[in-house]
Amino acid sequence: MSRGFAVDDYTARLARAQAGMQHEGLGAILLTTQPDVLYFTGFLTRFWESPSRPWFVILPAQGDPVAVIPSIGAALMGTTWIKDIRTWSAPDPVDDGVSLLADALREIGGPVGVPSHLETHLRMPLADFDRVKAASGQVFTDDRRIVAGCRAIKSDAEIAKIADICAIAGRAFDRVTEIAAPGVALSQVFRDFQRLLLEEGADWVPYLAGGAGPEGYGDVISPATDAPLAAGDVLMLDTGAVRDGYFCDYDRNFAIGAASDAQRAAHARLIEATQAGLEAARPGATASDVWRAMADIVGGGEGAGRLGHGLGLQLTEGLSLTARDHTELRAGMVITLEPGIKTAPGRMMVHEENIVITDGTPRALSPLAGPTLTVI
Amino acid sequence: MSRGFAVDDYTARLARAQAGMQHEGLGAILLTTQPDVLYFTGFLTRFWESPSRPWFVILPAQGDPVAVIPSIGAALMGTTWIKDIRTWSAPDPVDDGVSLLADALREIGGPVGVPSHLETHLRMPLADFDRVKAASGQVFTDDRRIVAGCRAIKSDAEIAKIADICAIAGRAFDRVTEIAAPGVALSQVFRDFQRLLLEEGADWVPYLAGGAGPEGYGDVISPATDAPLAAGDVLMLDTGAVRDGYFCDYDRNFAIGAASDAQRAAHARLIEATQAGLEAARPGATASDVWRAMADIVGGGEGAGRLGHGLGLQLTEGLSLTARDHTELRAGMVITLEPGIKTAPGRMMVHEENIVITDGTPRALSPLAGPTLTVI
Repeated sequence: MSRGFAVDDYTARLARAQAGMQHEGLGAILLTTQPDVLYFTGFLTRFWESPSRPWFVILPAQGDPVAVIPSIGAALMGTTWIKDIRTWSAPDPVDDGVSLLADALREIGGPVGVPSHLETHLRMPLADFDRVKAASGQVFTDDRRIVAGCRAIKSDAEIAKIADICAIAGRAFDRVTEIAAPGVALSQVFRDFQRLLLEEGADWVPYLAGGAGPEGYGDVISPATDAPLAAGDVLMLDTGAVRDGYFCDYDRNFAIGAASDAQRAAHARLIEATQAGLEAARPGATASDVWRAMADIVGGGEGAGRLGHGLGLQLTEGLSLTARDHTELRAGMVITLEPGIKTAPGRMMVHEENIVITDGTPRALSPLAGPTLTVI
Repeated sequence: MSRGFAVDDYTARLARAQAGMQHEGLGAILLTTQPDVLYFTGFLTRFWESPSRPWFVILPAQGDPVAVIPSIGAALMGTTWIKDIRTWSAPDPVDDGVSLLADALREIGGPVGVPSHLETHLRMPLADFDRVKAASGQVFTDDRRIVAGCRAIKSDAEIAKIADICAIAGRAFDRVTEIAAPGVALSQVFRDFQRLLLEEGADWVPYLAGGAGPEGYGDVISPATDAPLAAGDVLMLDTGAVRDGYFCDYDRNFAIGAASDAQRAAHARLIEATQAGLEAARPGATASDVWRAMADIVGGGEGAGRLGHGLGLQLTEGLSLTARDHTELRAGMVITLEPGIKTAPGRMMVHEENIVITDGTPRALSPLAGPTLTVI
């Protein structure tokens, strides 16, 4: 890929997966999703948006990966480091890669591990998966979380990609004054902010959320309505923009016209919680430790919910900063710190930053916001 | 939803699914994906981009749907017509909705149909699916293609949504002169075209593909490189932009500076093939009939590949215009006509339009291109 990684990076990723497979007694791992395939091969395309064709990559316990893919992807896969590329003319209503995949799995041997735990799914029709299982004659099991484990620890080159897209989003956030003012519909702000992200260098914008209101916003997943911004509102924009396949995921709050005391106080509290998260985010601490450091400040106990998560080839991946996730932090993990605070019944404010865990103090990948709420 | 559908539209969709379920002897259908959930509920959010949380909607054979979802989505789901909303605090590493979903399925009863055929996948961890199957005590089977069958026939209100986003893309294509010229990197053209789509009213741009070169382009799935456009290139841009959850999916070709005879001839042939597709696209004809009408003009036999597909809540959905897909066209189906032609070894040109099947002549939803290749 023109802006991808060195072949050595991919062989190192494969070697880590193969060490895990040998430890767990797996003969192969079957990959079916965009981020998993991208991570091990460098195959980057927006064509995954079309559900019509499945794509398969097999990681054998020894030797190089085998791609079993629709012929429309052969040329692009041929530009990656993958050499063994087997294709069929998809979509085929009778045999949509089933025989080709089953043959490859029989040749490579099992047991075949398939990512099966939290945050995973199998991107192929269930009926075809059953046929592959039968036709290949192999034992299928879960992947022992090997794929997620490899992806959780980012290389310096990956961290640089995430830093790039964080910087792009930072420049877009600096330009929100150009697009947000009293009377502008929130839906228009959403469109314009995506435009700013593209202008600043994002390849595309898979995710944008936000909200506005004088006492905060109702939730952070609803699409924007055409309701206009008003003086006194606090506006939040939260983006997952992408460059070279890697995401940023952070937000900013802006007071429209003037900030109320309550808005200022809530923002300052969120920054205080973020700072506590930064202090707690050390190798050996658990996700729940970092969660607790922030929850102690924003309040709400377990009801505070998820206060951050892993980040990389997906908007959210890996650990969750919740009371119940006891995953141990390790150097090279990229995570978000995302404290939220209730501001009124059914209203909230949320702040989010992106950091990488190091052997010492975490390094900020997003430009950390200060305690003073920005007024625009 | 502020720009959604009337409740009657949703109850009509449910009634069609329930008629199918009663015919097939299913007690329930389990939905797990963004378009399927959106179609039956109106639940529209970009939050699906995060893989961390599964979302479930159960369509019972009788009665109203039941949503079993993360609590973070309760407020938004509460704005739809769905009344029975059951939530858990997700992600939960121990029981991520498994017990809640199993309880609901036991209450509703089976057999439980799950979309399992071409173009479908199950958006939940496989290990959790096994646990739900065991804990619910129900028989699980495929959905007999009921969900795909419902979604294939669009209502007038849905067709109007697709026409809206097609018109938005048409205005953006009219402005390509603003962004494409010799010396501009293709990656910059891609960024700017997404900006134009947003400026013209797209909510977001999940898909953009394209290519450029003097003899056409190499494939239509590769990401843009930083190589600059040159006079004599033909530039293709193909977008799947979205408004209110509905996609357009069509492309345009532009000659940069001047069009060669070969480019002009290839474009004219593509338009001729599109016209033949339009003539063939009548209720009662099959997908393969329409494919053949176009393949006879662009050549290549079965190697011509897929020359169009269904369109709606996904970039591609439903039938494929291939030699092997014998799905019968019916009024209300929205499809693309997408003939491609080889222009040189490893190079091609592709043209695409969006139409709706009616009882008479298909109605164009994209502004049909003429036989003269546009020069910019």
